[in-house]
Amino acid sequence: MCGVFGIFGHPEAANITYLGLHALQHRGQESAGIVTADGEQLLLHRGMGHVIDVFTPDQLAKLAGHASIGHVRYSTAGGSFVKNAQPIAVDYARGSMAFAHNGNLTNAEALRERLEARGSIFQTGTDTEVIVHLVAISTQRAVEDRVADALGYVKGAYSLVCLTDKVLIAVRDPHAIRPLCLGRMLDASHAHVVSSEPGSFDLIGAEFVRDLEPGEMLIIDERGMRAIHPFPHVPRSSCIFEYVYFARPDSHIDGISVYLARKNVGRALAKEHGIAADVVIPVPDSGVAATIGYAEAAGIPFEMGLVRSHYVGRTFIEPQQTIRHFGVKLKLNPVNAVLRGRRVVIVDDSIVRGTTSRKIVKMVRDAGAKEVHLRIASPPTAWPCYYGIDTPTRRELIASSHTTDEINQYITSDSVGYLSLSSLINAVIETQNTHANRASGGGSAARDPLDTGSFCHACWSGEYPVAFSHPPRQRQMRLLDT
Amino acid sequence: MCGVFGIFGHPEAANITYLGLHALQHRGQESAGIVTADGEQLLLHRGMGHVIDVFTPDQLAKLAGHASIGHVRYSTAGGSFVKNAQPIAVDYARGSMAFAHNGNLTNAEALRERLEARGSIFQTGTDTEVIVHLVAISTQRAVEDRVADALGYVKGAYSLVCLTDKVLIAVRDPHAIRPLCLGRMLDASHAHVVSSEPGSFDLIGAEFVRDLEPGEMLIIDERGMRAIHPFPHVPRSSCIFEYVYFARPDSHIDGISVYLARKNVGRALAKEHGIAADVVIPVPDSGVAATIGYAEAAGIPFEMGLVRSHYVGRTFIEPQQTIRHFGVKLKLNPVNAVLRGRRVVIVDDSIVRGTTSRKIVKMVRDAGAKEVHLRIASPPTAWPCYYGIDTPTRRELIASSHTTDEINQYITSDSVGYLSLSSLINAVIETQNTHANRASGGGSAARDPLDTGSFCHACWSGEYPVAFSHPPRQRQMRLLDT
Amino acid sequence: MCGVFGIFGHPEAANITYLGLHALQHRGQESAGIVTADGEQLLLHRGMGHVIDVFTPDQLAKLAGHASIGHVRYSTAGGSFVKNAQPIAVDYARGSMAFAHNGNLTNAEALRERLEARGSIFQTGTDTEVIVHLVAISTQRAVEDRVADALGYVKGAYSLVCLTDKVLIAVRDPHAIRPLCLGRMLDASHAHVVSSEPGSFDLIGAEFVRDLEPGEMLIIDERGMRAIHPFPHVPRSSCIFEYVYFARPDSHIDGISVYLARKNVGRALAKEHGIAADVVIPVPDSGVAATIGYAEAAGIPFEMGLVRSHYVGRTFIEPQQTIRHFGVKLKLNPVNAVLRGRRVVIVDDSIVRGTTSRKIVKMVRDAGAKEVHLRIASPPTAWPCYYGIDTPTRRELIASSHTTDEINQYITSDSVGYLSLSSLINAVIETQNTHANRASGGGSAARDPLDTGSFCHACWSGEYPVAFSHPPRQRQMRLLDT
Amino acid sequence: MCGVFGIFGHPEAANITYLGLHALQHRGQESAGIVTADGEQLLLHRGMGHVIDVFTPDQLAKLAGHASIGHVRYSTAGGSFVKNAQPIAVDYARGSMAFAHNGNLTNAEALRERLEARGSIFQTGTDTEVIVHLVAISTQRAVEDRVADALGYVKGAYSLVCLTDKVLIAVRDPHAIRPLCLGRMLDASHAHVVSSEPGSFDLIGAEFVRDLEPGEMLIIDERGMRAIHPFPHVPRSSCIFEYVYFARPDSHIDGISVYLARKNVGRALAKEHGIAADVVIPVPDSGVAATIGYAEAAGIPFEMGLVRSHYVGRTFIEPQQTIRHFGVKLKLNPVNAVLRGRRVVIVDDSIVRGTTSRKIVKMVRDAGAKEVHLRIASPPTAWPCYYGIDTPTRRELIASSHTTDEINQYITSDSVGYLSLSSLINAVIETQNTHANRASGGGSAARDPLDTGSFCHACWSGEYPVAFSHPPRQRQMRLLDT
Repeated sequence: MCGVFGIFGHPEAANITYLGLHALQHRGQESAGIVTADGEQLLLHRGMGHVIDVFTPDQLAKLAGHASIGHVRYSTAGGSFVKNAQPIAVDYARGSMAFAHNGNLTNAEALRERLEARGSIFQTGTDTEVIVHLVAISTQRAVEDRVADALGYVKGAYSLVCLTDKVLIAVRDPHAIRPLCLGRMLDASHAHVVSSEPGSFDLIGAEFVRDLEPGEMLIIDERGMRAIHPFPHVPRSSCIFEYVYFARPDSHIDGISVYLARKNVGRALAKEHGIAADVVIPVPDSGVAATIGYAEAAGIPFEMGLVRSHYVGRTFIEPQQTIRHFGVKLKLNPVNAVLRGRRVVIVDDSIVRGTTSRKIVKMVRDAGAKEVHLRIASPPTAWPCYYGIDTPTRRELIASSHTTDEINQYITSDSVGYLSLSSLINAVIETQNTHANRASGGGSAARDPLDTGSFCHACWSGEYPVAFSHPPRQRQMRLLDT
Repeated sequence: MCGVFGIFGHPEAANITYLGLHALQHRGQESAGIVTADGEQLLLHRGMGHVIDVFTPDQLAKLAGHASIGHVRYSTAGGSFVKNAQPIAVDYARGSMAFAHNGNLTNAEALRERLEARGSIFQTGTDTEVIVHLVAISTQRAVEDRVADALGYVKGAYSLVCLTDKVLIAVRDPHAIRPLCLGRMLDASHAHVVSSEPGSFDLIGAEFVRDLEPGEMLIIDERGMRAIHPFPHVPRSSCIFEYVYFARPDSHIDGISVYLARKNVGRALAKEHGIAADVVIPVPDSGVAATIGYAEAAGIPFEMGLVRSHYVGRTFIEPQQTIRHFGVKLKLNPVNAVLRGRRVVIVDDSIVRGTTSRKIVKMVRDAGAKEVHLRIASPPTAWPCYYGIDTPTRRELIASSHTTDEINQYITSDSVGYLSLSSLINAVIETQNTHANRASGGGSAARDPLDTGSFCHACWSGEYPVAFSHPPRQRQMRLLDT
Repeated sequence: MCGVFGIFGHPEAANITYLGLHALQHRGQESAGIVTADGEQLLLHRGMGHVIDVFTPDQLAKLAGHASIGHVRYSTAGGSFVKNAQPIAVDYARGSMAFAHNGNLTNAEALRERLEARGSIFQTGTDTEVIVHLVAISTQRAVEDRVADALGYVKGAYSLVCLTDKVLIAVRDPHAIRPLCLGRMLDASHAHVVSSEPGSFDLIGAEFVRDLEPGEMLIIDERGMRAIHPFPHVPRSSCIFEYVYFARPDSHIDGISVYLARKNVGRALAKEHGIAADVVIPVPDSGVAATIGYAEAAGIPFEMGLVRSHYVGRTFIEPQQTIRHFGVKLKLNPVNAVLRGRRVVIVDDSIVRGTTSRKIVKMVRDAGAKEVHLRIASPPTAWPCYYGIDTPTRRELIASSHTTDEINQYITSDSVGYLSLSSLINAVIETQNTHANRASGGGSAARDPLDTGSFCHACWSGEYPVAFSHPPRQRQMRLLDT
Repeated sequence: MCGVFGIFGHPEAANITYLGLHALQHRGQESAGIVTADGEQLLLHRGMGHVIDVFTPDQLAKLAGHASIGHVRYSTAGGSFVKNAQPIAVDYARGSMAFAHNGNLTNAEALRERLEARGSIFQTGTDTEVIVHLVAISTQRAVEDRVADALGYVKGAYSLVCLTDKVLIAVRDPHAIRPLCLGRMLDASHAHVVSSEPGSFDLIGAEFVRDLEPGEMLIIDERGMRAIHPFPHVPRSSCIFEYVYFARPDSHIDGISVYLARKNVGRALAKEHGIAADVVIPVPDSGVAATIGYAEAAGIPFEMGLVRSHYVGRTFIEPQQTIRHFGVKLKLNPVNAVLRGRRVVIVDDSIVRGTTSRKIVKMVRDAGAKEVHLRIASPPTAWPCYYGIDTPTRRELIASSHTTDEINQYITSDSVGYLSLSSLINAVIETQNTHANRASGGGSAARDPLDTGSFCHACWSGEYPVAFSHPPRQRQMRLLDT
């Protein structure tokens, strides 16, 4: 998962992008980068680590210009390399251009092979570089036509921002898998901004305008903004996991408040998997809203039974002596006073490998809980995501090879309850028509209300909206930048 | 505010201390330090910044030995200097010794002047160095007797750990102002540990044994542990603000669960300052438990109406363009979906200068709240703390010169309600006898139940338990280590 | 100017390359990089700064493999960017390949435009990337044939090393402008090494084998080494400035000892521009050997009248108060005791802008010298180098617009004497037949003795051996990596 | 060995001190520190590493004030600790004061024990802290009287600078063992400066005034400068090794040019140990001047047969494969062209353990030298220095247990010749009356010409000028700052 940001027509484009990336930091902490256009050339800086570590004030000051795009990248399992940091910026026949990209292509490898056969060289391992090559070899003239031409070849999920010295382009894939929205600065510049999430707009002093439509391309330049739809229509398949886990709770995605959706999902979970208990506690922070919903619906007191540490860092010294649940304890610690002697429901967003859930259950039981019931605000995660979320392989997903009973046994909980897919989808859809959602501007911003068919839920159902004959082979990188 | 930690008799003393400091990080992020004793000498490392930045694995590996003490230091208003990092370690007539100290002496300046008149030199600006000099000039022979002798001269708050090559000493001042507790490793070492808070014991794999009593000194060496009470008895005056704000919610301090105390305080607040409202929201994270209590008592829904960023860093680029509430937005962002059109109660632990509260109220109102009521889980903070909490001067404390009405007007809230001192004290005291508190081991750990006279509440009442003729002059440091 | 290094068939390929780059550090301090081949993939690390700062032991340990190439890059005037660090490594149709390059192409811009027109994208500003593209689009099959094919299109100076997972290729351009030589490890590996200079062989424990011939390509793989000459024959034009300034004094370049050549040049200078004086002093360190030669020929005592600081660093605080000759004094300081009251000859290798020479002359005069005569071990530098030495533009070269008399006046010396081009060439050529040069293995290593027509001396004569219709336009970079 | 610097009455005191330390960097690269006085308080910054790494422009800007002292510290064999960085700055009864110190006390341990017995604590392992304690407990009133009082107790070598908010004090010990000189800024400030060596004055724009006399104390404040001689007269014993090795060649020490002294010593060496040879080469850089003198006296050509690398760094990766003479080759490399087939004389300043000399001899022989003769510009180093030079213990000094023949055998040279002590002393003394020395201002600056009894030569003769009953025990540090 990644976050993208763009702004056009602002005297402090790099600073605003820096703040925008800061507000999207939850979408990626591995690397960060910004490109600005100063009218003559593109200026680039990127590096490994958090936004705050990659950019010093001096570094930011060098990024002159009135337009800018930025990117934060998620830490992937296998290792992280500076060469994969984005944006990617290149010189090509018609000048310079830069791209930042959230999502994953399903035919990147095939396109890469075709491009290599043509003589193209690849200096990164990103899908983005494939798109850049396709733009460079396009026979179209205008850069927006080149980008549209290039994206005509790719399949998969992308929310893309592209910058040249004259224009900022933002595109959301025809399935609208990853979010992307438009905003407007509230200061005198009234500059257009695009961002993975509207939750980033408060910090920069912008207002939310609307989500990008499936397959929509925005072209923003000195004359203003225009929107085109260069791709054939396909059914929408927006990632529903954004609501469950990934997005900020203060964001609206496609007209639905993430916070309200989570609460509603929590309520549905209480209805579907209610159980007699004394307290219900979240796994903070992503599970809090669902837990509040669960508590309300079930009439069980909500408590913060697990404390989250804000000081978790990168390299950590693990003692040689075995300490129970050490890894999880660095991040979470139980509050005995609300757990001892109680029947506890823990609400979490999902179970991936099961190892963390197991540690949390044991930790809560060690803290004196009489019963420990795990409630999951989504169905069993049994299929990998090929559209941009860094999930483990199927083999590692506990739900791909174990029944709920087996999972319950492994996790050592007294019971496990997963929300059914239909309940999850219904809970999210219902949210959009609630008064609170409408009142908060949610519903009105969506031109096209979401229905039960609007979502990608492949990680639970195995129904992949963008077809491929076989699971895309994970390219064995031949070149590693250490 | 600071945190101290100590362990004796463990093969990985430095690693355990590192983890202990990590778990006490909320008590101080300015600097961190560890001293170990390897049987022949003391080994020291300290530096500015978070525990994780001060200690590399290589650095930790150099800190050999079976005993260790550590310290984290809070960022003070005026500036931070490496020379003030603790522990302080010195050579003296009988070998080497190191000290780490949480609290503030009220007669440090006077003692310092007397020591200087005697010819002593001071290389830091800490109270700790005063204690070290007094230990060095003591005519007692055993180090524990020297420490007791030295502490006989000092007045004020201290929770102190001291390490020599043979012994670990832990002392809590006779008023028991700052917390300090004893634990025991659950591994084969069964090593004794001391820590500012028991919330640090889970991470290191230790169990809580008990709080130190007022004026108690623990002497831990190869033969085991013994406790003495070398000081005359004085009334207990434990800092009640630890429960309201400073301590971890998963800690018990002197037999009372911080989390439960906060909830109970929130309940009292609802009773004392109830108001018709649609939602009650905390200022995360310190206000969460009080808000849950408030919501329960008031029967108003609890919501996470403010999202806290986990990526706030040190140096930040502020855009030149004015962005409303910029400083607070880096840390907090409103969730419009639960605020728009609602009557909102915000629960916070305290108001210091009022500027942050004002920004939060405006932010919530900008998010569409119809009414914004601020409820404070403590009385008006009108007096500075001279016992170790870094409060601004009286002049800067808004409550020292403004009525609640004036504060309400400044903060632009619809109403402000402070909890009365008696209600606060009662809420905390009542907690210790609740079933949940007793069940979680709280009550039983306290040999000496707290009553209404057990607390220091000088920051609200101006009644300073450790007398001084006039407010202690803040020494104008003559020497600054930049 | 840059330095390249390569090794094939050594268990510690990265370590040896690291040491080789260290010994070539005088050829470039801006950036450094190493690529290794571990049989399956290429591993890359590069960064800004000195070899010692770019590579930590951990970083080096990651660079596994039995073959390696490396590069050090010279600090250019206009700014330095991480994206231009070498080697460049890419994935392409037939796997991965990496290139490191010393020299400058004269048709890079034209080739780049043709490649861009074809759809190629450029992520760096280096000539090397042009070569990589040409290799990638070659229709040849074997990598050595692809490289030869690609180099058939380029014009200019290059000493190139290329690494794939199977083969190390080293090529010297047909004019043999930049040096490149072959060596062999003296340890059990007997691995082949290539390096910009043989002065790097002592440190790594290798022996010099021979210089690469003009247009020669070495192909080194598991089966051994073979040499081919894939390009048409053109006259040799080796850079004579390598002898005067750039190369290490302990190197032999094309059969001539740099140290002996410099001494001989100094002797010629004494003959051509002898003057009555009391002492002759070098501008250390590059001028020392020429000064020894001058002193011997002139019968004037040699003294180290200028002391060079070894602690000159990157960013320096300049006081606001004017200090005479401040910039030069950071690097050089006069020894009054050998200058006061004396007639002094200063020997330097060249005059570029004249500002430094002016400061040195004034500094020596301030130290009490009665007369100050400047003797330059080369002709007036009046033309920029387009083959890899970072000279200023013609306009900035003082000799392009001023006579020697005018220069003497500007520099405030009592006299200035430049060595004539014919004397310089003769002095270098004569060196190869001296006993000392032959005895030290110099002459015998050269298959093809150099004669007066063997050199490029364009910076003095304006006779550019590789033709271009007009001075190559310095590409206005459109993309800057800050 | 260390370097000290001080300035009083300059608007850029910290910047000038920074440059002064830069010019004294050859006297210490382990740590650096500066203290300034801004009229109200002392400001301190110090750190490990080179001057250039310890001070950023931001850091320097914080060091406000018109007076400043600074210190560079030599890397000692056993390890280096930040706590030992100087200056030391303290608060004491009469305000703040800071000290920086070059030299070693012979009764520091005894004084420390007495101070500890009195109750003093020690936070560093430096002799300087002993002096600071003595100043603090002095019953004198004025700081200069306190310093004089304190120094009355100490024995050994010191060149000391001391700063308070009102006065800069500089003292040279009664034996004048270490150098210390006075200068004056040439700018409008005409500020007084003191420095370990006058070679630092050119860079800062100051002129040399005179050396401090034995036992002289300079007191510099707003009213100007006055000199006192508070100590009883003792015979002068200035370290003669400063001329041979330690000082900058562009310095005059006590009226004698270091460069000229070295040349004269080289001449004496040629006379005493002349041998038939083809070339004479220095071990750069310290041996160059002596080699020039040797070459002149012997009539043998001087050559730079060893090239010194300027890029030697701190941590270096050593290959596992054995490379002959690896350690030395990082620093030095032979120039085969001047060594092959020749009879070579190598001139070095001294032999310590013999291991480096052995490697150099082998390296020169490997380069093809027919004969290798080592000539040492000083007598056999057989005794450790207790006055501030970091020599190994006697046991490690090869000359303490081996005859010259045995050393010759170990080093594998064809002959070894050490200069006799009387010749060395005579060569240095004769220098002061040479025309060149007088002309360069040397002789005139010395009020008190040096004679054969003026020197400390304990490292060769074992005659220690400051008596102690037994070699001072190296204190086993009990406290280590890692």
